[in-house]
Amino acid sequence: MAMAEVDHLAAERATARFDVEEMKVAWAGSRHAVHVADRMARLVASDPVFRKDNRTMLSRKELFKDTLRKAAHAWKRIVELRLTEEEANLLRQYVDQPGYVDLHWGMFVPAIKGQGTEEQQQKWLPLAYKFQIIGCYAQTELGHGSNVQGLETTATFDPKTDEFVIHSPTLTSSKWWPGGLGKASTHAVVYARLITEGKDYGIHGFIVQLRSLEDHSPLPGVTLGDIGGKFGSGAYNSMDNGVLRFDHVRIPRDQMLMRLSQVTREGKYVHSNVPKQLLYGTMVYVRQSIVADASKALSRAVCIAVRYSAVRKQFGSQDGGPETQVLNYKTQQSRLFPLLASAYAFRFVGDWLNWLYTDVTQKLEAKDFSTLQEAHACTAGLKAVTTSVTADAIEECRKLCGGHGYLNSSGLPELFAVYVPACTYEGDNIVLLLQVARILMKTVSQLASGKQPVGTMAYMGKVQYLMQCKSAVNSAEDWLNPAAIQEAFEARALRMAVNCAQNISQAASQEEGFYERSPDLLEAAVAHIQLIIVTKFIGKVQQDIPGHGVKEQLQTLCNVYALYILHKHLGDFLATGCITPRQGALANEQLGKLYAQVRPSAVALVDAFNYTDHYLGSVLGRYDGDVYPALYEEAWKDPLNETVVPEGYHEYLRPLIRQQQLKLSRL
Amino acid sequence: MAMAEVDHLAAERATARFDVEEMKVAWAGSRHAVHVADRMARLVASDPVFRKDNRTMLSRKELFKDTLRKAAHAWKRIVELRLTEEEANLLRQYVDQPGYVDLHWGMFVPAIKGQGTEEQQQKWLPLAYKFQIIGCYAQTELGHGSNVQGLETTATFDPKTDEFVIHSPTLTSSKWWPGGLGKASTHAVVYARLITEGKDYGIHGFIVQLRSLEDHSPLPGVTLGDIGGKFGSGAYNSMDNGVLRFDHVRIPRDQMLMRLSQVTREGKYVHSNVPKQLLYGTMVYVRQSIVADASKALSRAVCIAVRYSAVRKQFGSQDGGPETQVLNYKTQQSRLFPLLASAYAFRFVGDWLNWLYTDVTQKLEAKDFSTLQEAHACTAGLKAVTTSVTADAIEECRKLCGGHGYLNSSGLPELFAVYVPACTYEGDNIVLLLQVARILMKTVSQLASGKQPVGTMAYMGKVQYLMQCKSAVNSAEDWLNPAAIQEAFEARALRMAVNCAQNISQAASQEEGFYERSPDLLEAAVAHIQLIIVTKFIGKVQQDIPGHGVKEQLQTLCNVYALYILHKHLGDFLATGCITPRQGALANEQLGKLYAQVRPSAVALVDAFNYTDHYLGSVLGRYDGDVYPALYEEAWKDPLNETVVPEGYHEYLRPLIRQQQLKLSRL
Repeated sequence: MAMAEVDHLAAERATARFDVEEMKVAWAGSRHAVHVADRMARLVASDPVFRKDNRTMLSRKELFKDTLRKAAHAWKRIVELRLTEEEANLLRQYVDQPGYVDLHWGMFVPAIKGQGTEEQQQKWLPLAYKFQIIGCYAQTELGHGSNVQGLETTATFDPKTDEFVIHSPTLTSSKWWPGGLGKASTHAVVYARLITEGKDYGIHGFIVQLRSLEDHSPLPGVTLGDIGGKFGSGAYNSMDNGVLRFDHVRIPRDQMLMRLSQVTREGKYVHSNVPKQLLYGTMVYVRQSIVADASKALSRAVCIAVRYSAVRKQFGSQDGGPETQVLNYKTQQSRLFPLLASAYAFRFVGDWLNWLYTDVTQKLEAKDFSTLQEAHACTAGLKAVTTSVTADAIEECRKLCGGHGYLNSSGLPELFAVYVPACTYEGDNIVLLLQVARILMKTVSQLASGKQPVGTMAYMGKVQYLMQCKSAVNSAEDWLNPAAIQEAFEARALRMAVNCAQNISQAASQEEGFYERSPDLLEAAVAHIQLIIVTKFIGKVQQDIPGHGVKEQLQTLCNVYALYILHKHLGDFLATGCITPRQGALANEQLGKLYAQVRPSAVALVDAFNYTDHYLGSVLGRYDGDVYPALYEEAWKDPLNETVVPEGYHEYLRPLIRQQQLKLSRL
Repeated sequence: MAMAEVDHLAAERATARFDVEEMKVAWAGSRHAVHVADRMARLVASDPVFRKDNRTMLSRKELFKDTLRKAAHAWKRIVELRLTEEEANLLRQYVDQPGYVDLHWGMFVPAIKGQGTEEQQQKWLPLAYKFQIIGCYAQTELGHGSNVQGLETTATFDPKTDEFVIHSPTLTSSKWWPGGLGKASTHAVVYARLITEGKDYGIHGFIVQLRSLEDHSPLPGVTLGDIGGKFGSGAYNSMDNGVLRFDHVRIPRDQMLMRLSQVTREGKYVHSNVPKQLLYGTMVYVRQSIVADASKALSRAVCIAVRYSAVRKQFGSQDGGPETQVLNYKTQQSRLFPLLASAYAFRFVGDWLNWLYTDVTQKLEAKDFSTLQEAHACTAGLKAVTTSVTADAIEECRKLCGGHGYLNSSGLPELFAVYVPACTYEGDNIVLLLQVARILMKTVSQLASGKQPVGTMAYMGKVQYLMQCKSAVNSAEDWLNPAAIQEAFEARALRMAVNCAQNISQAASQEEGFYERSPDLLEAAVAHIQLIIVTKFIGKVQQDIPGHGVKEQLQTLCNVYALYILHKHLGDFLATGCITPRQGALANEQLGKLYAQVRPSAVALVDAFNYTDHYLGSVLGRYDGDVYPALYEEAWKDPLNETVVPEGYHEYLRPLIRQQQLKLSRL
């Protein structure tokens, strides 16, 4: 589809109250980041191999083959153009199709780096870097997900042959879900219970070859397959999530990942002197990238919904004149603008997490583990909150596009279906929030002993003030004061945590109390994480941000985000007495005023994400707003339109219409 | 898949505290209803033509052909077995695949019945009843959805030939979305602007033939097609939602639906003496059936999630013993049991709506329009709330099944994708809630004049008491008193409505105020509708309900529903001063106790829905709980597993693995 010369959204762009080019820099992080992303996005968008507009119409087999083709082509371009790692990652991001390479680079390589010895890294990484082997990460099993300690696959050391015997003792021990496993991978890091000298030492990682490097056939004793279709058309069906069973498969002893512990030639299990905590660094890294992905997915959905809401008109004219732009309705604004603000909020908290990862890494190298627990809780909680919100928000954006959002050509069904697993993988969100809650409870219990909480929990040190403070807000405008917001959010989070701790202390045991109060603990954990997001957003807009009006727009969005959360969770704020009903009403009043301020800049605020039409993949979200001819054109591409009279007419429709019901009954 | 002899859920069924067979009767409405549903469900489940386990793997064309085949086969069975209308409707429900027949019976026939004259009914209905014509309902256009008055298609009367000329003057006037239009229908009721004697009389319905009855080809001047793929695989893609354009298509004058108004031979536009209000009866009917469908969809999702949560085990054992059933976790219960309670709540409010429809119909026949507005608001609001909650709840149930819920074989992705359009069709939920809000505001404004509100708004007559009452709740158990719940919900709904009215009255104009306050009005409308649901559930459990423990279980579920809503919307209750923070905490405490009461009966409570494994269509929701072998078996059916080495290996994987990157770059 050639880009037309029209711009139906020109009037919208003209009303922006800030410099869009500078906002792109604020969003991307730097001018350099804007340029690289721009270059990679265009590279992908202009290459016919990377087209994706037909993706939802492909059969599973066609889609998978298309994924292999795109992966090979992307690699070819990366090699040809000698792309840097940063460029290569961006290129893969814009190709925007889940596939085995995600696991190869994102899980297999990091697992070897993190858990392999120097020697193992030297042997395996060069093979992986050149794709001479393709690897995946085989942890979860048919009967076992979040609870890694429950895995059943065994790796039994046989001292006679100096080998481990990898085995799937039950049906539920079948490896299940690993991406890239079903059809593409030649190798896997397999997690299994290490058994030596008759003793079970728990879960360890092993490098296991699965397929022949000659002809890709599964090795003896290895059963491999795809686990079947998943949510949506297109979407994650490009990935070969796999099933894997072992029937006493033997691997050399040195394919156990031995950085943290080893099995000796004699079969002795020994720990190395490398601290276990090093593994947490990887977890922080993976989860910070998931938070970054959340802001990407959310901003794509919001971009589509904002642009189409500016194009679409409904009602508002009693006398046959033009209808009103949907974006002008307060109900549309009150649902859409908080999501726009959330996209920015998640973006900036993601930037901060990136910094946190560097900080944690440096401290780990210096064997300083003091902030590790807090950092771990913080990334776990941010992963949980941002992915849950994003999944719901994509679907909300789809609904905000009315009926047309239900068409695949809107891009939103696929965006939703491909995104939602983020709520489950790398730690189920509920499990993660309970981890946050555990650390919150521990921190509360230590307050009495005078131990000062660190990092994102430092505010809990102000317990005496926060337990009794009263908000000074006396007018709607008072809610624009970041200190007022910050205090209300801190008091709410702390009081909810303290309430939980008090309730738990009344139970027969701490464990029993934690179990009974776990629904409340989830709410306390969410309050704590929302405070972190608000705090980091406030911190961001207090920095020096160049560009006409950019800082002011971000301040407005920061206030929208905070007051929207306050309104949505009003019960928390009122129940803990942090604010009064009147102050809650003032916050809501101010929120309405902020929506009016966002309105003229809304389209420009999504333009600042700088997404190509290719990456957005949405007829409704087109940059030029020329939606209706494009929708009409897309419709005719459906396979059902290949014939005017549908297949099945003669067998199943004509006999009805031609009054042959009686004959029909004799078919 | 043969039903195994095992029952992994037998222990769960043994702990039920009530008579499941009697609960089936309470759910279905009568013993007769249980028997008919049972018979029809088995008829469908045992017929290989109606298999649907492969549905998500079919291409669009295969899926559509399969739908035509099922529709013809269902009709054949209906005719052969001389099924009653009740039986035929149930049979179609259990076939469970959207298709043109839904629109033929659900929209085309009712439109002719409701808007056609006696003469028109006598001409067209027999053709439709025998499927000699297939009809659909062509209202929405590419550029026009909810706002019927904005439609652009024209029907211009030509007195020379005594015909209407149907025309699509713009691209945005293309008919877009009507189900059954794209490929199957021969006729449509088309909504168009009636123009005669140079004057536009607004939107009217016309019966228009679209396709030849000989060979199904579109008639001259008619352009027809499918609008393309929609959310999910399988799901609504079985339906040929269509696009339709008219190029000056002529139809005889007597194909205008003339019950309410006519165009004479001379071209004069005249109203008949049939009151317009009669049309609202149909709307009440359609929406009550949507509420009934919501309880069906929600109960299916809940049934799957409850059974699988009883099967699935995670964590809970520190010492290698068996893990804990997921259903035992309080976090799982606090997310799942409110949805179980909502399924029952929606079921009973649906029964009541069915009664309301009968009541409205009788009153309409007696030309009594006194309750029409209230009934209309009530059905509109219940449609909006039940469909929104159900859509979100299906997705929540999917997440509650962990990773496996993301597999098509869980049935939940398809259930979600096929259900969500209910939030948009037959009135976008936001638009409907604003209609409710309008009537609420009107009712509030009339309170001062002493006009007594009727029906579901009668409580507003107690304005003086409800504006100042204070909840007497003083212990967690006090919240089990229906009167305490009822009063808190009434006070909350009324106070929110009155607040809105006061805020609106401060605006420059009523319209301006309504527009500015529309986000708050949505919340007030939801509060009013939730009150109706709670009230009808309380009313139900105060009736005589036979069967050991049945009434007690329903009382528990009713309390779960009410206190869950109270906790979720705590901000409303506290902000309006209906309850104190302490009373809110007591409600939450009681809610936790109620979950513990539901737990032993949970599986039996979903068994009471009496769904066959065929209808559920979920490996995770199997009656026998034998989930894992079934998941494993399903996986191998994926087309990707037809070969061990995937298509594309030689082109796209082998060159990488065999180190041929350099050659690759010359491809």
